[in-house]
Amino acid sequence: MEFQDYFPVWNQLTSEQQTLISNTVTFRSIPKGTVVHNGSMDCSGLMLLRSGQLRAYIMSQEGREITIYRLFDMDLCLLTASCMMRSIQFDITIQAEKDTEVWVIPPEVFKQVADQSAPMANYMNEIMASHFSEVMWLVEQIMWKSFDKRLAGFLLEETALEGTNTLKITHEIIGNHLGTAREVVTRMLRYFQSEGFVTLARGVVEVIDPARLKQLSEE
Amino acid sequence: MEFQDYFPVWNQLTSEQQTLISNTVTFRSIPKGTVVHNGSMDCSGLMLLRSGQLRAYIMSQEGREITIYRLFDMDLCLLTASCMMRSIQFDITIQAEKDTEVWVIPPEVFKQVADQSAPMANYMNEIMASHFSEVMWLVEQIMWKSFDKRLAGFLLEETALEGTNTLKITHEIIGNHLGTAREVVTRMLRYFQSEGFVTLARGVVEVIDPARLKQLSEE
Repeated sequence: MEFQDYFPVWNQLTSEQQTLISNTVTFRSIPKGTVVHNGSMDCSGLMLLRSGQLRAYIMSQEGREITIYRLFDMDLCLLTASCMMRSIQFDITIQAEKDTEVWVIPPEVFKQVADQSAPMANYMNEIMASHFSEVMWLVEQIMWKSFDKRLAGFLLEETALEGTNTLKITHEIIGNHLGTAREVVTRMLRYFQSEGFVTLARGVVEVIDPARLKQLSEE
Repeated sequence: MEFQDYFPVWNQLTSEQQTLISNTVTFRSIPKGTVVHNGSMDCSGLMLLRSGQLRAYIMSQEGREITIYRLFDMDLCLLTASCMMRSIQFDITIQAEKDTEVWVIPPEVFKQVADQSAPMANYMNEIMASHFSEVMWLVEQIMWKSFDKRLAGFLLEETALEGTNTLKITHEIIGNHLGTAREVVTRMLRYFQSEGFVTLARGVVEVIDPARLKQLSEE
């Protein structure tokens, strides 16, 4: 599959717009762990994921983190072009969680096409609305859900993403996803172990009773 | 001033689009306290505020509330037309905090114009991005800021909005804005009183030292 097959509203662009994008798009391989966007200074352009996984998160002044959303195959990453959107007024960091391949449309090209094309602008709108929805979900989780339920939900999401019940993940990284101190994660995981939901080893959390974790997360 | 003067991208619409909107827009007076939108069922249309104040908030199953954002004169309320945006996937309630006057564009008309018009779609994008930014700010507040700082910031925002340091507001309503139990608000306000930031009376919070509240909120 080529760039055009991945780009959602390609067929609704004019041939001039298609040519402009084709002539300026670049392909980039991003090794796992690379920070591709950091705060309001960066503006590499609109990224379209061919494969891999990106994580968008915010950080406190003390260095605590919380995951805002993740991007997967065929997703468009708007915020790496945030310099073109003056109403985006917050700093976010975007990092590759797996080896990732992206096509990059330069920010000025993205802006020029979005300014002219209603289908493109409406598609951006859909993405913005879905990120908005994800952050609203996060607010509900933080405000109304206790930490045991959030952790249970996170572990289940990870097993689905990784395709295995044996998660190679440290308590610190879990804390960075959920905006919580490592000690709090460790305490709750030990409780989960005593309840028979998981078993713990160094750098590994093994989910052994996903059904009861699911029940807990949905309570 | 007329509807056209309030509508942001009016001059960038075609005359057909202008006629369509002019022929279908209605004017509505909303008494203070009225709920104009409640969850995903409602879809009255795109609202353009002529005067007044709307508050968008979410509610937990137990009935706790937290304010997400507010809308003022000349603001457009997108979420009262959320049925037209399939990526908006959360329930929000919108209520008039003051007597409010709005123009309402029917949801189908809004959708039809946004589908055709890049300026309109881009303007929606700006609004969505600014709401997204407000929710991100809220996440940062909830995650990293202690309640005393959030309460200090809220009191200062209220004095600016109301144009007075004498706020007629109950501890319960403050709790509903900040997603906190009334008791927690009362305890912190009493502390603020003992520090000489505010004085309290039944249904009234009087800000007497805004400078120190500001200092606290920015710490």
